[in-house]
Amino acid sequence: MNVLVTGGAGCIGSDLCELLLRRGNEVLAVDNLSSGSVDHLEGVLDHPRFRFVEGDLLDPAVLCQVMPGVEFVYHMAANPDVKYTHGERTDKDLRQNTLVTYNVLEAMRVAGIRNLAFSSTSAVYGSHAVQPIPEAAATRPISLYGATKLACEALISAFQHLFDMRCWIFRFANIVGPKMRTRGRTVIADFILRLFANPKRLEVLGNGRQAKSYMLASECVDAMLYLVENTRGDFHVYNLGCDDWLSVSRIAEMVIGAMDLHDVEIFYGSTDAGWPGDVPRFRLDVTALNRIGWKAKRTSEEAVFEAIQSTLSAVKQGGLPAMPCNPSF
Amino acid sequence: MNVLVTGGAGCIGSDLCELLLRRGNEVLAVDNLSSGSVDHLEGVLDHPRFRFVEGDLLDPAVLCQVMPGVEFVYHMAANPDVKYTHGERTDKDLRQNTLVTYNVLEAMRVAGIRNLAFSSTSAVYGSHAVQPIPEAAATRPISLYGATKLACEALISAFQHLFDMRCWIFRFANIVGPKMRTRGRTVIADFILRLFANPKRLEVLGNGRQAKSYMLASECVDAMLYLVENTRGDFHVYNLGCDDWLSVSRIAEMVIGAMDLHDVEIFYGSTDAGWPGDVPRFRLDVTALNRIGWKAKRTSEEAVFEAIQSTLSAVKQGGLPAMPCNPSF
Repeated sequence: MNVLVTGGAGCIGSDLCELLLRRGNEVLAVDNLSSGSVDHLEGVLDHPRFRFVEGDLLDPAVLCQVMPGVEFVYHMAANPDVKYTHGERTDKDLRQNTLVTYNVLEAMRVAGIRNLAFSSTSAVYGSHAVQPIPEAAATRPISLYGATKLACEALISAFQHLFDMRCWIFRFANIVGPKMRTRGRTVIADFILRLFANPKRLEVLGNGRQAKSYMLASECVDAMLYLVENTRGDFHVYNLGCDDWLSVSRIAEMVIGAMDLHDVEIFYGSTDAGWPGDVPRFRLDVTALNRIGWKAKRTSEEAVFEAIQSTLSAVKQGGLPAMPCNPSF
Repeated sequence: MNVLVTGGAGCIGSDLCELLLRRGNEVLAVDNLSSGSVDHLEGVLDHPRFRFVEGDLLDPAVLCQVMPGVEFVYHMAANPDVKYTHGERTDKDLRQNTLVTYNVLEAMRVAGIRNLAFSSTSAVYGSHAVQPIPEAAATRPISLYGATKLACEALISAFQHLFDMRCWIFRFANIVGPKMRTRGRTVIADFILRLFANPKRLEVLGNGRQAKSYMLASECVDAMLYLVENTRGDFHVYNLGCDDWLSVSRIAEMVIGAMDLHDVEIFYGSTDAGWPGDVPRFRLDVTALNRIGWKAKRTSEEAVFEAIQSTLSAVKQGGLPAMPCNPSF
């Protein structure tokens, strides 16, 4: 099948390209490289069934370039930063998430492309009293990231109904893996980079009691393809993850242990949330996912353990990546 | 209080301006007059505490003009057409609903205005098996109108949390009243105008078994102000309506009776939905609204009866309004 992967040079999108190629598809990846990197595509760039286009999906010319002949769109392109830092522009997520998704949907409608899988997020739920959170729960996003992803879901829902499409919406747990090495993108990379900078002191944003579901990027893309291949019907919303959670203070201990550091002083903040818009505690109800026949091979702790190991080895091989000034989690 | 009413020349916005003036507020209305009309403001244009600005909220200059000094924003501006007609542009709702709402929120953030009431819609829910629909139900919009209103809700939710605002989101039933006289905007005006054109034949879009909750515009704005004045907390989502529903075939009979017509042949379509994106059956759970102490004075049938009477008398006084070419419901 001819598959388009938007955000194909991203941490998850690039893993998805690899898996789609292994399944025999023709894969076209498009990415504006604002947060993705061609380095992530190292293993597939020379593959005969793979093509890469650098371009921003806010640009209609890019859409015209990538859509012809496509049969299935995996729309992974997004601003991946869940954090909003006061003083930043407030329209980054609206543009890169919601408006880009509208552009993709409209280009699909015009080109008559019916199939869409979309990377949504558990951040659409916001803070819920009842955990774990099922897909039918009310959505009350508290971050611009979560809000604009919910806006994408809403547009997909309407386009699916009006224009006879088949759509899969996947609400991801916190996705971790060796490619997420930039400070501020995951708690793991953040702790590792902070401890490389100062092995005696670790500052944690929030009180450390935040607890979330984690999943490896490799398992996330495996679950996506499994669901696309094993579900009927035209509209699907699935939580992707495992149903346990892991505290931030436990992750701090795990990173310190994996780096073989001793006598690290850990400084916790006083707030439940690590940063404005952070959902301090969430656990996903993955009953629907499991019922279809897919179950995460790793618990949150096992996923985080493996991500710590692979991130450490990637950091050691590739050196420390640049640290953006964005105050990190 | 200094109040801004966006969409203040609309069918509901203009009723809201009147009520806010009666409560002693300074009212500034802004409207691009794309669907609203200065005629709706007849009764208040000369009021000493009322001002009107014609302008489109997609234009930053208009936002700069209307925001200074405002303490409370009633954001009613929207593309009011729930219908999508194949062949139309698909970005009308995205622009006039979602992007305008983002502009309003961002202008409020910059100006430090904390209070927002927003006219959302029962169309955010889509088709639900379980009726009546409570506010906590999952949202699965099937129209571009419903999708882009849900996108607005999501942005409001995030802005409320991140920037310490107070927000009320109101999900309206089908709002009816004498001002909604344009063909295609409500089933009542549509039937009346069709029967003026041909008193022997009435064509109904859909099989007539569609059943919905109806509410008079005057009751809708009364409920809005009641909730703003009688609720605590910073984030609210309320269904506005009564908890019964009324079928389209019954409305056809009621209009024919009120016009004193006989031997009208009614032609029904074959589909459940009247048009693409129509939710054929919905009934709102208004338990939360009633619990705060507000209850609709009229059932759906009583509201529709009153709207038929007042629309007929407005049409007789003012002549028939222009009929847009939009195939109507």
